[in-house]
Amino acid sequence: MVNRTQPRTGRGADTRQAIMTAAERLYAEHGLSNVSNRQISEAADQGNNTAVSYHFGSKATLVREIMAQHGTRIDVIRRRYVDEAEGSTDVRDWIRCLVRPAPEYFATLGVPSWQARFAVQVMTDPLMRALVTDESLTRDSLRRTLEELHRCLRDTVPERVRRERGEMARHLITHTCAERERVLAEGTAGPGVSWEGAADALEDALVGLLTAPTSRRRKITESHPEPSKEPA
Amino acid sequence: MVNRTQPRTGRGADTRQAIMTAAERLYAEHGLSNVSNRQISEAADQGNNTAVSYHFGSKATLVREIMAQHGTRIDVIRRRYVDEAEGSTDVRDWIRCLVRPAPEYFATLGVPSWQARFAVQVMTDPLMRALVTDESLTRDSLRRTLEELHRCLRDTVPERVRRERGEMARHLITHTCAERERVLAEGTAGPGVSWEGAADALEDALVGLLTAPTSRRRKITESHPEPSKEPA
Repeated sequence: MVNRTQPRTGRGADTRQAIMTAAERLYAEHGLSNVSNRQISEAADQGNNTAVSYHFGSKATLVREIMAQHGTRIDVIRRRYVDEAEGSTDVRDWIRCLVRPAPEYFATLGVPSWQARFAVQVMTDPLMRALVTDESLTRDSLRRTLEELHRCLRDTVPERVRRERGEMARHLITHTCAERERVLAEGTAGPGVSWEGAADALEDALVGLLTAPTSRRRKITESHPEPSKEPA
Repeated sequence: MVNRTQPRTGRGADTRQAIMTAAERLYAEHGLSNVSNRQISEAADQGNNTAVSYHFGSKATLVREIMAQHGTRIDVIRRRYVDEAEGSTDVRDWIRCLVRPAPEYFATLGVPSWQARFAVQVMTDPLMRALVTDESLTRDSLRRTLEELHRCLRDTVPERVRRERGEMARHLITHTCAERERVLAEGTAGPGVSWEGAADALEDALVGLLTAPTSRRRKITESHPEPSKEPA
């Protein structure tokens, strides 16, 4: 029997949070496939090793709830950026909405944290990634950000290229945050290596990437196949 | 006892290749941690399930040899690009040396292939990634490419930012190729979705990313800490 209600307070809520916190760290360090519910229960100090299935049912549900919890908090921050950007036609303002909220949120967690590395494990698993992507697109602030980015780039970057670069952007944000989290956790961070630095790095890099011209060769290929390989 | 010699011909060589081919596919699909030597031996049609340890010793050695085999073939292609770029001060020419060889090599494998997705699994594991990175930097053509890229960008992009963006570039190449390989294998590829298209996409995106200006805020942070958060 699965307890699918989600108590907000009290011992049930504490147990759920303890499980989510333990699961996130273990999944971050070992990967989604390599961690058993028993290991999570033990790490969460749950005497009962069926605690995970009791509170969450399946691994997919547990993973989705951890990601949703982060997503909610990141969304609060993104809404502030979207309000600041409202009415702007400067692509950088909307790229700030895309890239800055996650590192800003991770900065609130202190060192060490595991959430960014957990997110990489989720994004690496195609099935889990699809679940999480669907969920994140229900957030108005993210949808608004993506709409405005498309609008800013519509006249200069073909649609297929915009979509390809959107995928690239997602990988970059995920992996840059995970690397930053690892370096901070290992204590090997030099000067300028901070969450704010990661946000700055992503902002600059993505302005360059998303607005980059498409070379002539690609434009030709999109209208009709061109056997020539000469560079533009 | 481990047979550490590497026969180039004959049944020993065939066995080694069968093991490497099977291991690559299984690791690509399931991750490095989730595949046993027994499963690899079975997939390679080896009656003897100690075949993997006999021929390779450890998983790390097997992984390194698979990556080295790809690396050698990619290196042949990269040397051609470096010869073409020789004497150029156009950063795009050296970015072509960086990004085009891997997708060009993957195109020779036919569909489906597993090498790009295998590379993602290796790059996701920090220990494995370090082993592989060390090995790749022994290739002259790659070192030459990186030297020339640094030279092209030296006056416009601070060193720390160049290094950060080098990491970003590596993630982008690895993940873009893995995604392309997955789409081709699933048969869901639309027009323009090819290995050449992936190379074009990476070339354009990385010209933008690597040459992107660094915003004023970052320049200030690098010389002395600046508490102000006003945008540049």
